[in-house]
Parts: sequence; C-alpha cells; structure tokens
Amino acid sequence: MNFQEKLEKTSKKNNSLLCVGLDTDIEKLPIHLKNDPDPLFAFNKAIIDATHDLVCAYKPNTAYYEAQGTDGITALKKTIEYVNQTYPEIPLIDDAKRADIGSTSQQYAKAIFDYLEFDAVTVNPYLGFDAIEPFLQYKDKGIIILCRTSNPGAADFQDLVVEGEPLYIRVAKKVMEWNKKHNNCLMVVGATWPKQLKEIRTLAADMFFLVPGLGAQGGDLKETLMNGLTQEKSGLILNASRAIIYASVNEDFAQKAREKAQDLRDSINQYRE
Amino acid sequence: MNFQEKLEKTSKKNNSLLCVGLDTDIEKLPIHLKNDPDPLFAFNKAIIDATHDLVCAYKPNTAYYEAQGTDGITALKKTIEYVNQTYPEIPLIDDAKRADIGSTSQQYAKAIFDYLEFDAVTVNPYLGFDAIEPFLQYKDKGIIILCRTSNPGAADFQDLVVEGEPLYIRVAKKVMEWNKKHNNCLMVVGATWPKQLKEIRTLAADMFFLVPGLGAQGGDLKETLMNGLTQEKSGLILNASRAIIYASVNEDFAQKAREKAQDLRDSINQYRE
Repeated sequence: MNFQEKLEKTSKKNNSLLCVGLDTDIEKLPIHLKNDPDPLFAFNKAIIDATHDLVCAYKPNTAYYEAQGTDGITALKKTIEYVNQTYPEIPLIDDAKRADIGSTSQQYAKAIFDYLEFDAVTVNPYLGFDAIEPFLQYKDKGIIILCRTSNPGAADFQDLVVEGEPLYIRVAKKVMEWNKKHNNCLMVVGATWPKQLKEIRTLAADMFFLVPGLGAQGGDLKETLMNGLTQEKSGLILNASRAIIYASVNEDFAQKAREKAQDLRDSINQYRE
Repeated sequence: MNFQEKLEKTSKKNNSLLCVGLDTDIEKLPIHLKNDPDPLFAFNKAIIDATHDLVCAYKPNTAYYEAQGTDGITALKKTIEYVNQTYPEIPLIDDAKRADIGSTSQQYAKAIFDYLEFDAVTVNPYLGFDAIEPFLQYKDKGIIILCRTSNPGAADFQDLVVEGEPLYIRVAKKVMEWNKKHNNCLMVVGATWPKQLKEIRTLAADMFFLVPGLGAQGGDLKETLMNGLTQEKSGLILNASRAIIYASVNEDFAQKAREKAQDLRDSINQYRE
C-alpha cells in the first residue's frame, strides 16, 4: 500500500483530516516525564495511544529530535517503530524540509525512508528538480513539496511575481509536472494564507495538501476548509502540534491531548458535511 | 574568535582557500576500513590528519551521516570533537541546508551549534527571514545562505526573473540586509555558474562565498577565481569533496587525498598572485 492509499484509508476509518505534529520539545514535557529514561519516546507513546483513533497521520518534525543528539534520533526511531507495530495503518510524515544536490538528496532519502522508515517527507523546492528527484523515485512514499509556507517570512520570496504570477504558483505548477511520473507528490500550503490555498487548489484539484499553521500559528479553520477541500470534501492533512500535544503539562497531558484532538477533528468535520 | 576570524586566520596560515568536503559515504570507503568499529570516523580522521595543513575549513555534509542513523551521527560528532581538540584553528562548516518556521529553526540551530558544535551552517532561503533569524542570532557562527546553487536544477526557480532581476540576485540583496546586524552571513554560489558568481561578487564585494561544484561537478577553477575573488584575492571557500576524499580506495587513500588537496590548493593559489 502506498502513502496516499494508507492516508486515505486511515482518514476514512477515523473520519479525520487531522494530523498531530509530534514536535516534541524536551523543555516542554510534563515534569513527571523528565526522569523517564527516554522522555521523548514516553511522551510520544502516550500521545499516540491517546489519539490514534482520531488522526489521519502523525508528523514528527526532525529538528526537535536532532536537538537532542543521538538520544533524540533513537527516540524518533522508537516512535516510528512503535506506530508501525501497534497502529500500522497510520502513515508517518517526516517534517524535515530537506533538499540538496542529487547525490546528497539520495542520502537524505536513505536516512528518511530506509533507516527511519517514514512514509512521507517534506522537501524544499529552492534547488530545483534534481534535488527532489531522488525522493520522487521512492514511488510508494509521499513527497510533500513546500509551496506556500505558514510563517510570516514566506512573503519574502514565495510571493515575488515571476512572469506575471507569484513564485509559489510557479512552484505549484512544477509540482504538477513532477507528479506525473509516480503520482506521489503533495504540497505544503499554510493555513495562515487562505487566499493562496484557494489558488493552489484551483491548480491542483485532487492533490493532497499538508496544511500547517492551525492552532498556535493562528490559521482560521473555516477559511482553510472552505478554500482547501476537494470536491470529495477531503484532500487536506490539517496539522496541529503545540495546541494538542502541550494541552496540559500535568499527568493528564495525554487525556487533554485527546480532548483537544477530538474537538479539532469534530470542528473540521462540521465543514465537510 | 568568531567563524570569520577563524576562517581568515587558518586560510592565511595554510595559504589556502580550499575546503575539503567530508561527504563520507559508507559505500565508497576503502575496503580495509569496512571492518573498523567506526569506519566513518576512521576515514575522516585519516583524511583530516593528511590534509590539515592544506585547508581553510572542513565541511561535512550531514546527509551522509544521517543515512547511517545514530552510528553516523556519533561518527560526525566524534569527527567534530577530533578537529576541535587536535586542530582547533580549523573551522567546521555543517552543510545541512536547513530552514523551517522560526521555532523549529531554533531547534536546528541548537542541534548544529550547541549539540554538534559546528562553527557554521548552510541554510535555505525559501521560507524567508524568520526561518533564518534563529541561526543569525548565533552571532559568532557563520550563516551561509544558498544563493545560486551548483546543481543543474538551480535554474528551475533561482533564475526566474522577479521585477527585472533573477531570484538569486533578490536573495543576495536580502542576505546583504540580514548581514547588517551581526556581519555573520555568507552565501553559497556554485562554481558551475561563473557569470552569476561575478554578479553576486559585484553586489557583495567583501563577503565570503562558499563555492561548491569544483571537481566532480565540473566547475572551472580559473573562471571561478577570476569572477569570485575579492580585491584582497580572498573571499572564497572553495569546496571539493569526492575529487579529494575518494582519490584512492586503497590503503594509500589518505596520502592520495593529500596529493590531490595539495595540487588543488596550489592550482588555486596560481590565480591569487
């Protein structure tokens, strides 16, 4: 089963477009976990056990794990193994935003797909096609290309007008080309930019978009869904991280995360009827 | 001593603009190292011991280490510690091409500067200023922003014309702005694009550029130097990886790497007189 099939199956089963971002920051863990021999994994496991029937995917961001060195990478790998063994239907997205010259991107693809065994990865388009191609060649994986990101600085370059259209539209058009070979591309479009989301949906009627920026970053849920849903009321992977995983810093953190995830899943589903 | 001072001091001492790229691929190691308990580190140590008096910097690319999982990260950290202890005057550049939303870039900066203890890092500009700022705040470190990369796909987006000038020129102009605060920015400009190198040198008369693409990627040395040197016949970090570190796959690999490094350093210096 390829990434997209896995995503659609779990999305349907859990009736959910919600992706929980496992941006697990050691400084934000509940105090009672800080003496755990593997606090990052213990935290992730509790969050996953509490939310597995409410999500369409999980998305760890590698930066948080790399900041903890080899211990962090070990916790990340254990998290992936835990999901693959316990909830094998749930796809795992590596939010890594990688890209380098071809021979080097090949090594990143090995790290992410062969060593860590993720189902999908986010990549940065600035270096162009040959930097993305080694990822695309993993035809069963999801390759999620940054198009219009959720952060304020996105406007610095992504909005610049090239030959009558913004750069992010140029990127979206290239992604549509790159997608022809294996049909394994997705795009990142921030929830903080509903107008741009609509434009990109017009270009890519059926493609899945990974949408960060809900919750802590302030994206509006209704606007996002009105502008981003496909005709089948799907096509979005709506990520929330901090708003869910840090809902409480007490011993009830996993239960509170479940409540937040359930609320958000259900709020999303209101606009899909 | 900040990154740039360290770089200039070592460049002067070793009379060298040559940076050796430690893109250490486990599949390309000499056969006799394959049974070493830590083959990546054993290889790097031998290359470093053989070339330390010929370089201005070393530049490991993290992708090759990440592809080997925690063993790779351990080898990378040991390599950095070895250089910092044995040749503390030599700056270490992390070719990581990172960038994410601000709070996440902060975690990457922690991984690269606090955990791994690199002196400099390469970063990708596509996400704009707030993705770069957490790196810039490490004012003694070198922040090396991708401008015009060395790979063929660079033309896909970097050459697109925005308001009468190519995107990479727009990026270069932004970097000049970002550099004002701590004077800790550099740019990546590929040796495969001498015309672009000249344009960017005109904009940034004194800034150091990291120049990949010599050797295996086919960049022309004379053109690169004629177009890229500053008035003081410096301002370039000329990287070669494969052409040096894989000069031989036999037991003489370190000696052969030294010969290649010496040849290249001396060829570079011909054009600096």
